[in-house]
Amino acid sequence: MQNFTFCNPVKIVFGKGTIANLNELIDPKAKILLTYGGGSIKKNGVYRQVRAALKKRKVVEFGGIEPNPTYETCMKAVRLGRKEKINFLLAVGGGSVLDGSKFIAAAISYKGKDPWEIVKSYGQVVKSAISMGTVLTLPATGSEMNAFGVISRLSTTEKLAFGSPHTYPKFSILDPQTTYSLDKKQLRNGIVDTFVHVAEQYATVDLNTALQDKYAEAVFKTLVEIAPAVMSGKKDYDARANFMWCATQALCGLLSCGVKGDWSTHGIGHEITAFFGLAHAETLAIVLPAMWKYEIKNKGAKLAKLAENVYGVKKGSTKQKAAAAIEHTVKFFHSVGMPTSLKAYGITLKDAEKVVNRFADRGSILGENKDIDPKAVRKILRLGL
Amino acid sequence: MQNFTFCNPVKIVFGKGTIANLNELIDPKAKILLTYGGGSIKKNGVYRQVRAALKKRKVVEFGGIEPNPTYETCMKAVRLGRKEKINFLLAVGGGSVLDGSKFIAAAISYKGKDPWEIVKSYGQVVKSAISMGTVLTLPATGSEMNAFGVISRLSTTEKLAFGSPHTYPKFSILDPQTTYSLDKKQLRNGIVDTFVHVAEQYATVDLNTALQDKYAEAVFKTLVEIAPAVMSGKKDYDARANFMWCATQALCGLLSCGVKGDWSTHGIGHEITAFFGLAHAETLAIVLPAMWKYEIKNKGAKLAKLAENVYGVKKGSTKQKAAAAIEHTVKFFHSVGMPTSLKAYGITLKDAEKVVNRFADRGSILGENKDIDPKAVRKILRLGL
Repeated sequence: MQNFTFCNPVKIVFGKGTIANLNELIDPKAKILLTYGGGSIKKNGVYRQVRAALKKRKVVEFGGIEPNPTYETCMKAVRLGRKEKINFLLAVGGGSVLDGSKFIAAAISYKGKDPWEIVKSYGQVVKSAISMGTVLTLPATGSEMNAFGVISRLSTTEKLAFGSPHTYPKFSILDPQTTYSLDKKQLRNGIVDTFVHVAEQYATVDLNTALQDKYAEAVFKTLVEIAPAVMSGKKDYDARANFMWCATQALCGLLSCGVKGDWSTHGIGHEITAFFGLAHAETLAIVLPAMWKYEIKNKGAKLAKLAENVYGVKKGSTKQKAAAAIEHTVKFFHSVGMPTSLKAYGITLKDAEKVVNRFADRGSILGENKDIDPKAVRKILRLGL
Repeated sequence: MQNFTFCNPVKIVFGKGTIANLNELIDPKAKILLTYGGGSIKKNGVYRQVRAALKKRKVVEFGGIEPNPTYETCMKAVRLGRKEKINFLLAVGGGSVLDGSKFIAAAISYKGKDPWEIVKSYGQVVKSAISMGTVLTLPATGSEMNAFGVISRLSTTEKLAFGSPHTYPKFSILDPQTTYSLDKKQLRNGIVDTFVHVAEQYATVDLNTALQDKYAEAVFKTLVEIAPAVMSGKKDYDARANFMWCATQALCGLLSCGVKGDWSTHGIGHEITAFFGLAHAETLAIVLPAMWKYEIKNKGAKLAKLAENVYGVKKGSTKQKAAAAIEHTVKFFHSVGMPTSLKAYGITLKDAEKVVNRFADRGSILGENKDIDPKAVRKILRLGL
């Protein structure tokens, strides 16, 4: 086990009707900027619940944070927040709204010249941020219980992650009932996103992290168990609650304790989104199985454990079990209606070369063994064709 | 799943050589009260490491906090701390030192008449506490990552738990190497304590908490796997690291999310310690199997899951599997050298009547179904004879 530091101060308020607790979670004197996305919270009743809970507080609103939140949109909110002298940010929505709001919270406080430095420095330049709380409506990214955000910049076709101890939400309200209005694509994306978050922390070099590995398997198994009930679209409270808690747990830092993370699937996936506009989870479902095929020697032992402990594969050699883990995972993605190939989106190998070039330009090398260079990225994309 | 709130702000600094980080974790201006136990930290090198890390800081020391820390001893530290105007408490040792120090931290700040009110009110009266950090040397109680303490009062033969949001440690340093000097009784007690903490949150009414149940099973399975390596007494770093992380995870609040806890084994166990002086884990190992036998109808479904998912019992009815879970658990306790009967300590049923009378006097009823009344306690103690 590697040495590690773990500290996650986010207060999670979980369950039915918990949006009603909002008012007592925010300083009575706070001047609030309420951020949200494309307006679904106005259709599904969440906006109404939030405003009712906030009573007669003065609230400035900023809507229109898009999926894969852009620097360009977020900077409008930064200017509004500065003008209105807000000192609390309430993000209501899915991971994109939360990620964008973390950037807004840091950028409003930022004293440097260009707030894009926040993203370019991976959050290193962040010295403070406006306090922030969230009401989550889409289980997927885990943003509600971590300090990370991913921001896209249209002008440069970039999509980059950042994080800082200052960008943890103070609280996150998780009412599983808010997920009832999600469509099948959103549910499918959330399940796959959660699965791949766990995979990046599990299918890596074995460092004798017995408990963390079993925790990861617990999330995998729960996802596989509940996926049919979630995808049925029915208002099944327990299935939605377990799904929501899985998504939060998958990226709250707990599964990373003492572990050497991979994150190459995310690295490549972000570029596919940046160039071709696929949803985050759609890219992950293409890259993960391809990455595992490419890395089957290095990841074989862990993938065999995945096959045994999650999919119940008891027979075969380590190599056969590892191959079975990939097959079962692809089947699982298909079972929730998720494609696993570039072709499904009309992307050719020639198109994908843009992604390879991006890594070549940056000189960045990915993976827990630092062996995913641009040539390896090309091979992986070919396997994901 | 029940609604829940989860927030655990403790910073965990885990791994080899991490005591060296101590200085940077404490405000340079802090006036420190260093608390410890019977002096084992002076024999095993931990004291030397702590003092070396603190460099030339001014430190007031208070040693002699006993196992099952007493109000009487802790109040001496409270008087010393007030006299020396300390504003940071550094607890170095096992759960007893940490629990005692939480009480000391709250009592130094307490404005009420009698600090015993802190315990009597289950922490409700605590409005502030001196900041505190810990260096853990004995994996068992989980005190390093929660807000709880258990304090005994000699003058009234009481042993009671308390907790407050103000008594979370700011940080806890966990270096698995500090456990190398523990004797077999301490290791055995730590393993059983951890196991029973998980059991109180798992073997209870099924509320469809799929992930939390699997997390609990993950701790159980890890404990069963690593126990032989831990009990061998060898300096097996990974076994000790996994043990230490299991003990912390078992009582950090995560396994309780959305769950209806039992805690009747702890309630009865505390009284056995109060009257007969057994170590905490020794009492738990007697009461848990007896409690499960008594509650086999109510707990049957969960115990059957324990048998299946932890002990690999695949055949038999739910009832048979539940019985097998109890048998396997008793065998596991015996495998680490832990007795599971009152008789092993020379305690008769007549002696145990004191415990029954204590519950009768208090009128307290225990268990997740509120069905463990004094009569039930008597039956359970008979099953634990």
